[in-house]
Amino acid sequence: MPILRNIGTLATCRADGAQGDIHSIHDAALVWEEGRIVWMGPEAELPALDDARESWDAGGRLVIPGLIDCHTHLAFGGWRAGEFEQRLLGESYQDIARAGGGIAATVEATRAVSEEALSERCVDFLHAMLRLGVTTVECKSGYGLNTENELKILRAYRRVSAMQPVRLVATLLGAHVVPKEWKADRRRYVDLVIEEMIPAVAAENLAEFCDVFVEDTAFTVDEARRILGAGSAVGLKPKLHADQLAPGGGAELAAEVRAVSADHLEHASEAGLTEMARAGTVAVALPLATLYLRQSPMAARRFVDAHVPVAVATDFNPGSAPSYDMHLALLLACTFLGLTPSEALKGATVHAARAVGRERDIGSVEPGKAADFAVIDAPDVTHWMYHFRPDTCRMTVVDGTVQWEAPGLSPAGTGRC
Amino acid sequence: MPILRNIGTLATCRADGAQGDIHSIHDAALVWEEGRIVWMGPEAELPALDDARESWDAGGRLVIPGLIDCHTHLAFGGWRAGEFEQRLLGESYQDIARAGGGIAATVEATRAVSEEALSERCVDFLHAMLRLGVTTVECKSGYGLNTENELKILRAYRRVSAMQPVRLVATLLGAHVVPKEWKADRRRYVDLVIEEMIPAVAAENLAEFCDVFVEDTAFTVDEARRILGAGSAVGLKPKLHADQLAPGGGAELAAEVRAVSADHLEHASEAGLTEMARAGTVAVALPLATLYLRQSPMAARRFVDAHVPVAVATDFNPGSAPSYDMHLALLLACTFLGLTPSEALKGATVHAARAVGRERDIGSVEPGKAADFAVIDAPDVTHWMYHFRPDTCRMTVVDGTVQWEAPGLSPAGTGRC
Repeated sequence: MPILRNIGTLATCRADGAQGDIHSIHDAALVWEEGRIVWMGPEAELPALDDARESWDAGGRLVIPGLIDCHTHLAFGGWRAGEFEQRLLGESYQDIARAGGGIAATVEATRAVSEEALSERCVDFLHAMLRLGVTTVECKSGYGLNTENELKILRAYRRVSAMQPVRLVATLLGAHVVPKEWKADRRRYVDLVIEEMIPAVAAENLAEFCDVFVEDTAFTVDEARRILGAGSAVGLKPKLHADQLAPGGGAELAAEVRAVSADHLEHASEAGLTEMARAGTVAVALPLATLYLRQSPMAARRFVDAHVPVAVATDFNPGSAPSYDMHLALLLACTFLGLTPSEALKGATVHAARAVGRERDIGSVEPGKAADFAVIDAPDVTHWMYHFRPDTCRMTVVDGTVQWEAPGLSPAGTGRC
Repeated sequence: MPILRNIGTLATCRADGAQGDIHSIHDAALVWEEGRIVWMGPEAELPALDDARESWDAGGRLVIPGLIDCHTHLAFGGWRAGEFEQRLLGESYQDIARAGGGIAATVEATRAVSEEALSERCVDFLHAMLRLGVTTVECKSGYGLNTENELKILRAYRRVSAMQPVRLVATLLGAHVVPKEWKADRRRYVDLVIEEMIPAVAAENLAEFCDVFVEDTAFTVDEARRILGAGSAVGLKPKLHADQLAPGGGAELAAEVRAVSADHLEHASEAGLTEMARAGTVAVALPLATLYLRQSPMAARRFVDAHVPVAVATDFNPGSAPSYDMHLALLLACTFLGLTPSEALKGATVHAARAVGRERDIGSVEPGKAADFAVIDAPDVTHWMYHFRPDTCRMTVVDGTVQWEAPGLSPAGTGRC
């Protein structure tokens, strides 16, 4: 029965209460067994336990639930660094897309890459994310845009799940944009997603969610409704990219189809917000996209005030958010969105778990949940966001196993007793 | 004669040309001897050299001049994480200062810390900065605000210079704010800075620069003019914190007194900008303060267009910029200020060297200059900014000596041949 002692602040991130209520325990200890948390509380109240346990010392540091990055486009070919510079020089994301750059460029690069090569690249990214305290990653397809290549990406995710410790949750995003070969006949592409792609993904059980990018440059609300309906019919739960670049009725649709989450929402309408609150849909904020696209942030406070759970994720992708740095995403959730550090953290843990339908299993440090947690070199959550620097994560545990432990960077010394 | 081979892109950052002209050499090599660069160019043109040299392999990566953080408040007691949260909840920096928080809180904490303890803290920060590729740091006093404590901070910097490899450039900022004991008689505090503090600092040769915070909550233009004049008279070159929170004539004063740099400038007037261009004053952009204070960014493009050299620094301090992450500052220089990656990099190297009066010695990779450089795990400067992640710096060399080399995080493997 391994135990982690000397935890300065244990941010349990239990779901109940307000967005900012992370239910911290000070001077805490944490006990787990066979991958599950069995006890946490003040160290002074630690029950008598079998003595033959492995013991770790958090060095008075902060311990948080393993971070859940609930929105990424993890598998892609190539990069698009040039577009970053083009945008700085004044071109818009939409202009670049219309000129054949953007998602279309990544689709071309991704189609050219083998399942094996895609998998290896994902493993590299995931190892780096693990070192940031991330233990679960939602990962979308969407750079294949034909059945063969969408399946290739989702099969890569299945393969990657067995190659490294981070837990993956796969989402079919066949409806990311209309690929160029169907531009002249978009209805047939929607039919292809519905009649060929979704059944094939369901037959191989390759995804849990079906997502659609509802946007001027992508799919209409009506198209999305059809696609998500077809997904639901075979057990793929709905998610939505909604109202990122312009208001488009995405939030309203998310509520209508009872989507698990609606993501982006920079331009969500007040009505959409109200309906999301009623439907219990999680709002996923993606502040790295706000940073990289230099756009207005999502109005997180309005969602919080309306009792919509707000999650925070990276949106990691080679165009609008080419960073998997969850710590930076959390800092920006504070400075761009106006969330407090505790609100942001709850967004990257228990609310993110809900956004991937796993709130019973992960997202908080509670008895019975998976022993996923990270030791952070900060005294508390506020300090962690405030004093931004690399290498704050000292140890990451997934399913009870230490999967990352920092080399001796800090004299304070976390680690084995 | 050590040599670094297999450099994918060598961004030499020579001073001539436009802000964005970093004079890159591809497939390059770099040779140094006794702490000075003796040759750099395409590896194919490498001259015959003594064979008994130490050889390093950059693995096709990017090599940049050692980063120069030309504006920090490195030595301080305590932290102010609580204010970060207060600001997120709607309080302004100025409101917090008026209520006894802000700089005054750090002054109290800093006065309570010994020179030894301050020094040790600085050494920890500098080791972390070194791992980010930073080789020179400008460091201000300004949390002592009486002669005894201002000297303590500057003596700590002198001590720290001998304790670790990062090159320090010290600045007296006795005129940071009026300390509370002189609030009722600010003129006497200005006199104290002029008549006691400046002479004492000059007598011990503890600083190269004299800086004043010109702002509603700090010092007037007239007070700053007197203080900088007194500093100049004893060889302390002028610098200015100007027009950060509101327009206040700071840029104009910087030009008038031929300040080496004027820093912040978020609210600089058009006239101030024109006068700075004429005077040759460097504009130091501090985008982490923009991030943390959630304010409008400095209009860097206007300065670049007016041929004012723009430098980029962290402003590291416990209030408005509690991060020493130069990589993040550079990313924000792109996304907030609209600089291109090359423009931002030139701002953190050769223009930053000019902002600390060291442009003859450091800031670019050129024969005769100090062998200060960093190996960055990216193919080029644009990619480095675009794909933000921790741990991109693989090796940092100061004065020809490898002072930091990353552990084997990346399979690509930089390092000794």
